Amino acid sequence: MTEALRQVTHINNVALSEDGAAVVIIDQTRLPNDTVYLTLHKAEDMYDAIFQLKVRGAPAIGICAAYSIYCLARQIKAADYTGFLAEFQRQKEYLNSSRPTAVNLSWALNRMEKVVTANSHKSIEEIVGLLREEAQKIHDEDVAMCLAISEHGLTLIKDGDGILTHCNAGPLATSRYGTALGPLLLGKERGMEFRVFADETRPLLQGARLTSYELHKAGIDVTLICDNMASIVMKNGWIQACFVGCDRVAANGDAANKIGTSGVAILAKHYNIPFYVLGPTSTFDLSCKTGEDIEIELRDPAEIREKFYKEPMALKDVKCYNPAFDVTDHSLITAIVTEKGICYPPYDKSIAALFR
Amino acid sequence: MTEALRQVTHINNVALSEDGAAVVIIDQTRLPNDTVYLTLHKAEDMYDAIFQLKVRGAPAIGICAAYSIYCLARQIKAADYTGFLAEFQRQKEYLNSSRPTAVNLSWALNRMEKVVTANSHKSIEEIVGLLREEAQKIHDEDVAMCLAISEHGLTLIKDGDGILTHCNAGPLATSRYGTALGPLLLGKERGMEFRVFADETRPLLQGARLTSYELHKAGIDVTLICDNMASIVMKNGWIQACFVGCDRVAANGDAANKIGTSGVAILAKHYNIPFYVLGPTSTFDLSCKTGEDIEIELRDPAEIREKFYKEPMALKDVKCYNPAFDVTDHSLITAIVTEKGICYPPYDKSIAALFR
Repeated sequence: MTEALRQVTHINNVALSEDGAAVVIIDQTRLPNDTVYLTLHKAEDMYDAIFQLKVRGAPAIGICAAYSIYCLARQIKAADYTGFLAEFQRQKEYLNSSRPTAVNLSWALNRMEKVVTANSHKSIEEIVGLLREEAQKIHDEDVAMCLAISEHGLTLIKDGDGILTHCNAGPLATSRYGTALGPLLLGKERGMEFRVFADETRPLLQGARLTSYELHKAGIDVTLICDNMASIVMKNGWIQACFVGCDRVAANGDAANKIGTSGVAILAKHYNIPFYVLGPTSTFDLSCKTGEDIEIELRDPAEIREKFYKEPMALKDVKCYNPAFDVTDHSLITAIVTEKGICYPPYDKSIAALFR
Repeated sequence: MTEALRQVTHINNVALSEDGAAVVIIDQTRLPNDTVYLTLHKAEDMYDAIFQLKVRGAPAIGICAAYSIYCLARQIKAADYTGFLAEFQRQKEYLNSSRPTAVNLSWALNRMEKVVTANSHKSIEEIVGLLREEAQKIHDEDVAMCLAISEHGLTLIKDGDGILTHCNAGPLATSRYGTALGPLLLGKERGMEFRVFADETRPLLQGARLTSYELHKAGIDVTLICDNMASIVMKNGWIQACFVGCDRVAANGDAANKIGTSGVAILAKHYNIPFYVLGPTSTFDLSCKTGEDIEIELRDPAEIREKFYKEPMALKDVKCYNPAFDVTDHSLITAIVTEKGICYPPYDKSIAALFR
């Protein structure tokens, strides 16, 4: 197996192919039943991979887009810089339109474009070389960030602990270690053993399909549970800490994450179990004073009634309420773990200090 | 539509056919997509209906068994009482073996058998007549019990309230009103309007398949949610009370019910929402001092990984923990509603008083 694929198998979901001409990804839509690697050469295939969620997770999308635009830049046949830039921008806009609301997608593509515009005096060959370096840098920076979060998170748990997690914030969504799962994977590398309970995370089952998959592949003792079983496993004394990711953190420490996270936090408080939120500082949005300012996306009722099932599980005219996220009140969060360190309450002060 | 079927449609899941020769049930395994009525004439079909969970819910099984053995008794061709009794007991044992652990099944069949043995001096025709009366009585008593629970429960809520429920404790599992859903159906009959949020109740989805079905059919405003959305609907201010059923209640008020119930109770306490357990006094087990004495059934991991899905949602070698029930601590329960009245804390005293 090639080095690129070995990385993909064990840790990464996105890599540059050995010859540097294509992007290799795990097709996440085929997980957990089939581990299929896709080698993307053409712009259409790259667009399709992002659009159809074959690659998902904000950081992973950014990394995939960076490698993709580099591979496409290699293929550009232009007489001069102007022609190269025009074609680069056309391809960039095309990739960028695959998931318009994914912030990391446009962030990574803009960063790649800057390499081109800042080096207009250099040869196209040199520019393409710089693009490869920049894509690798975007990837490396994400690995470093996940590693830093993992190092900080690892100080909060000890060998043999039982950890409960919700949704998926592991390597498949990011790079190498992931965020919420990072301390577990890093600890495993260092010979520690954890017992992880993964909420399946209805309605889209990221915990079942992705989290239990990647922890199992990493050789970590993982047990899948339905979301409504978190209370009994806590009561059984099996959980020493909860680790969850975050989609947005407000200035006061209120944290938006996958629907159901706030319920886990309330249970943890009831059972006196520490509840940790892990994520990069890029997910902090200080323009949101509290969680009240965070808008909650409502999704298609069919995800609850029908998705994944052989036949619908409720009548079509039964209403469903399907919020994608909920906000966990800062009072329920023991600490927030970032790549820059750990924030403890009072969060308004500790978060402000992080950004000073 | 016949009277028997109209009853089935609106309220009951079990009825005697108009000519009194057969049992009519809704096939619950076909819900919610197909509302199919089965008319059971033969012992094999009756056995099959219970064995394959076409009829389910402890009280409903008891009622079905009583009507079934009556219908079979009608068909017995015996020269004398001895022959009749022997054939009756053979049929009874056969039906009883369809679900050996269902207490209500043997309870109802034993009660029917007593009618035969206590009236050995009467004609077979008279005995068959008494059997019909007894089956009807078993049914009527369940309706009366559900009605009494519903009346008491209805005093705890007011017109316009939002109610959260978990799993299924409605008419499909019992008769007419159900237990946890009883106050809502009774209130609806009296012109009250409630807004019900039904937890889908993983892994077997009784909330989606049965609760949302029967509330919707009854014209009650019901919204289906995933179990992990209970926290956000409570936070939204949409819930004024939680109503759940119970499988067993200990002497101190600890209540075993469908997995996830204890989590709902903890959330309710966090959000200051009253949490009510509704059930007949027959579910109280005073030989259990506390919930610690209640054994929790562990079920097949495939229910979490595979059941209902087009393809498995987790790897086969990923462990699953699948407890069927959990115990809600009495300290989380605002009141326990029975057919004899409402028990408030301290439960050791109020429950003891109920049985004096």
